[in-house]
Amino acid sequence: MRYELYYWPGIQGRGEFIRLALEEAGAEYIDVAHQPEHHGMGMPAMMALLENSDLACPPFAPPFLKAGDQVIGQTANILLFLGSRHGLAPQEEAARLWVHQLQLTIADLVSEVHDTHHPIAASLYYEEQKDEALRRAADFTGMRLPRFLGYFEAVLERNPHGDRWLAGDALTYADLSMFQVIAGLRYAFPRTMKRFTSDYPRLAALHDRVAARKHIKAYLASKRREPFNNDGIFRHYKELDAG
Amino acid sequence: MRYELYYWPGIQGRGEFIRLALEEAGAEYIDVAHQPEHHGMGMPAMMALLENSDLACPPFAPPFLKAGDQVIGQTANILLFLGSRHGLAPQEEAARLWVHQLQLTIADLVSEVHDTHHPIAASLYYEEQKDEALRRAADFTGMRLPRFLGYFEAVLERNPHGDRWLAGDALTYADLSMFQVIAGLRYAFPRTMKRFTSDYPRLAALHDRVAARKHIKAYLASKRREPFNNDGIFRHYKELDAG
Repeated sequence: MRYELYYWPGIQGRGEFIRLALEEAGAEYIDVAHQPEHHGMGMPAMMALLENSDLACPPFAPPFLKAGDQVIGQTANILLFLGSRHGLAPQEEAARLWVHQLQLTIADLVSEVHDTHHPIAASLYYEEQKDEALRRAADFTGMRLPRFLGYFEAVLERNPHGDRWLAGDALTYADLSMFQVIAGLRYAFPRTMKRFTSDYPRLAALHDRVAARKHIKAYLASKRREPFNNDGIFRHYKELDAG
Repeated sequence: MRYELYYWPGIQGRGEFIRLALEEAGAEYIDVAHQPEHHGMGMPAMMALLENSDLACPPFAPPFLKAGDQVIGQTANILLFLGSRHGLAPQEEAARLWVHQLQLTIADLVSEVHDTHHPIAASLYYEEQKDEALRRAADFTGMRLPRFLGYFEAVLERNPHGDRWLAGDALTYADLSMFQVIAGLRYAFPRTMKRFTSDYPRLAALHDRVAARKHIKAYLASKRREPFNNDGIFRHYKELDAG
């Protein structure tokens, strides 16, 4: 089956967590909003699906994944689906829930990253909420981020199967997402992340381990990988990066 | 098996979504932080578990649920676990994912409610971020909330099994959470919610349908149900409720 991924073009955003899972799995997929409109794709196709009032299970927002007749929304939920289908999560229930728990904690971190530059309203420009962003980003880099990173480093350290992967003895979708978060944090907050490798050696090694995977390496070098930019979740505004 | 629920005492918070599921299921559980310290419970027991560095699968934050040896964190993940065990979610995969997708969208709404009074930092008092809260709450009540409520109303309207429940033809944990959100919004934003029943008749009926369930009705009338208050997620600050 060929999946259809629907997500805003021009940014990595939350769609990137899905792309990494699809790429690692070697799954066949179309990134619909990136395809030409004259082939019935592009943004019009995404908006048509979002606004289709016949859809019994409508997504609230992108990303969403079409798998046959099924339309699945919410990033962590899509990964739950793909994880069980493509060997990116363990089959056993307790282990599967643990991976999902890690993913939901990563999702919380991602939301907090977003709110560093948009603490007031997603509908306003950064420049319209810059004063508030300065305050929120200072709390994020000073308090929240060390708490999240310390947590994930401890998860690796305590993994009974060793510190290669967050959960169990094999790569899961949570590892792929953790890679993406680390890459994004380094782009957005280079000063804050200066001592990342020495402070969180296991996370830094995990990042490199994921980046070196055959499929991921090929993906990152391809044109399918959008570069980070200041329209996405991970944005580099020097003034928000206290360091 | 007797579950142990760990959550901050004195507020409903995210723990309440778990309590409602446990109560509806008639499951046996202990609300650990509410129990006396001299029985080895209370806050010290919760903090001991949170800080236990032997725990291979540590939760990032409350709520978490102990089920035998398993410690499960993240509200939506705990509901995923309880849902399949207590008939609060369908067994079939696509339907199960749809319920979870709804729950994750409810979780997004709950986070946005929290950030109306804490747009800058959870570690600061409301009074220290009141100016920012006024701006964020105006965006929330004016733009975001109608979008969320309109979405969930449409989900009920489009349910092929009728508009009694969000998903399928039976109550799920997402219905219980939706009830809690509506009750909370009415507490926090009474002016904004003034026309809720006429604008969102299906959601209003869902709220009443859940409140009338035998177990839920008994729970709401019991001392186990904490009242809403201004320490929780749903807080009533008149100035944030533009109406």
